[in-house]
Amino acid sequence: MRFPKQVQNLIDAFLRLPGIGPKTAERLAFYLLQAPEGEARRLAEAVGGLKSGIVRCKICKNIAEEEVCEIDQDLKRDKSTILVVESALDVFSFEKTGKYQGVYHVLHGIINPLANIGPDELFINELLDRVKEADEEVKEVILALNPTMEGEATKMYLVKRIEELKKNVKVSGLGVGLPIGGDLQYADETTLFRALEGRREV
Amino acid sequence: MRFPKQVQNLIDAFLRLPGIGPKTAERLAFYLLQAPEGEARRLAEAVGGLKSGIVRCKICKNIAEEEVCEIDQDLKRDKSTILVVESALDVFSFEKTGKYQGVYHVLHGIINPLANIGPDELFINELLDRVKEADEEVKEVILALNPTMEGEATKMYLVKRIEELKKNVKVSGLGVGLPIGGDLQYADETTLFRALEGRREV
Repeated sequence: MRFPKQVQNLIDAFLRLPGIGPKTAERLAFYLLQAPEGEARRLAEAVGGLKSGIVRCKICKNIAEEEVCEIDQDLKRDKSTILVVESALDVFSFEKTGKYQGVYHVLHGIINPLANIGPDELFINELLDRVKEADEEVKEVILALNPTMEGEATKMYLVKRIEELKKNVKVSGLGVGLPIGGDLQYADETTLFRALEGRREV
Repeated sequence: MRFPKQVQNLIDAFLRLPGIGPKTAERLAFYLLQAPEGEARRLAEAVGGLKSGIVRCKICKNIAEEEVCEIDQDLKRDKSTILVVESALDVFSFEKTGKYQGVYHVLHGIINPLANIGPDELFINELLDRVKEADEEVKEVILALNPTMEGEATKMYLVKRIEELKKNVKVSGLGVGLPIGGDLQYADETTLFRALEGRREV
């Protein structure tokens, strides 16, 4: 017995989303099926209207409602420090800390040969142009990429490309170690070793 | 810094779905934001078109594309056994086993006073009418409700209501015990005790 076509369509659409497996996709579809009429309509409209009026900031490539995003427009932000992230969501995560005063650059992905994503698919040249030509001199580039294989590879590639510019710019990565509230027993060996390497006097 | 309005709208819509928390909702919204244009459109259409052409079977209340569902139309199915489930998705789960030859009745919910869901919000009277008046005599009603507090309460309520009909109908519940592939060490005490109670000679 198969699901009705419309239901299977929706299950397939949910399955394409990251982190949604077959069971979850089925549950979501059947939830919407029995939910009040307005609920499915609201979701459909929210998905359909998502991209209208949203553009990429022409400087940092973050999502924005104007040509230049709020952060790059902000005169109080330190334009000499650029924090490089994989996705726009990461910008919001750093902004939530409320501690970072510099600006951002969103790559919109990570170098991943297995998924056919090379440097040219990302906003890497735009980052290099900023470092090379920005009105205000760039003093530091912080590579805040995920501590994964692909993240490390992209980091190494970026370090090399920035060095080639022969500008006096510091390139740094995020601190690696135990997460706050974490438990030694659950940390993997690499994290433990890196935490030990990165130890600080207290 | 807040998310753009359209993005926040979609995050809110995802948050209303069961099992989706704030982090997942954000990830899904940002995934769609950077996904190829077609992806968001396909999801919007699938959600929007979900309910068109889908009705409730007039006999068992399962979702159907015709007035009477496939199963109730099937002359080979044993109409004297009714398996009662909470949601339409459960019907598909039992059908996947390929072992059940009877028919179904979908309550579309469970008695839950805390959520203001009483017997009248569910298709309970329709079930009683079937037991009372079906052309073919109903010999057994299998109450296949989730083994939760609300499921047990609904089961007890149904047993009482079916008894009141004074029909010669057997009412049964699903077997309770260890799931296949499960591990004794991870089973809770109630499950273990019920598995012991339900032991069988091998």
